[in-house]
Amino acid sequence: MSAPSLFHISAIGHISSTLKKLEDCPRQESENAPPATIHIYSKFNEAVADIKVGDQLILLTWLSRSDRTVLTTHPRNNPANALTGVFSTRSPDRPNPIGLHNVTVTAINKDRSFEVEALEVLDGTPIVDIKSV
Amino acid sequence: MSAPSLFHISAIGHISSTLKKLEDCPRQESENAPPATIHIYSKFNEAVADIKVGDQLILLTWLSRSDRTVLTTHPRNNPANALTGVFSTRSPDRPNPIGLHNVTVTAINKDRSFEVEALEVLDGTPIVDIKSV
Repeated sequence: MSAPSLFHISAIGHISSTLKKLEDCPRQESENAPPATIHIYSKFNEAVADIKVGDQLILLTWLSRSDRTVLTTHPRNNPANALTGVFSTRSPDRPNPIGLHNVTVTAINKDRSFEVEALEVLDGTPIVDIKSV
Repeated sequence: MSAPSLFHISAIGHISSTLKKLEDCPRQESENAPPATIHIYSKFNEAVADIKVGDQLILLTWLSRSDRTVLTTHPRNNPANALTGVFSTRSPDRPNPIGLHNVTVTAINKDRSFEVEALEVLDGTPIVDIKSV
């Protein structure tokens, strides 16, 4: 392939959460993840202007603390689960550590930040994209 | 924010498709998108080793031909649809042009490339991640 294969990605915002360290994180979002606040940088105001309460969105994050050299993992960090190629899992450790999160918008704040339900993401995690479901 | 906000992302492979130019692309995957072949670079062999026929996966692509300066769009490229912030849409034009595609694996080839059902992605599009559904 002669096509370019290295790209740059910029944060469009970040997440505020009560999850301050990895040990605080539930293993799956269904397991008691707390709500979170989504802050998008003001240069993207137009791009978020149509987000409203009740919207179901897909949040793409950059999991900066991940190990990008990992190719196989025990799913859910449980040694009882057979070692599995990361592209068959949702492990945060992977060559390009993009996180995918389904969220529902519960409130829009005055500063255009917004609140979402259960989200298993560490405080300060960069956001790189938002899409409609 | 003092956290880093610029990241590097590397292609892990690319897509072969009969869709050679944008005009060939149906507007939504449900509308007659053709099957495609997923080629993953050999350095990631271990990471794809557990992918098998019938798997439902999420493919993340890098939509290199997108316009990264676009903040609002007419959904589905239809001027009749009101101008909408891109973070409320699935437009390929957006600050970080990551594509999200739900695919079903229909065959694994001898060279470890694999076939998927309907996929609206141009031939040669870089792949940046694969996750289980």
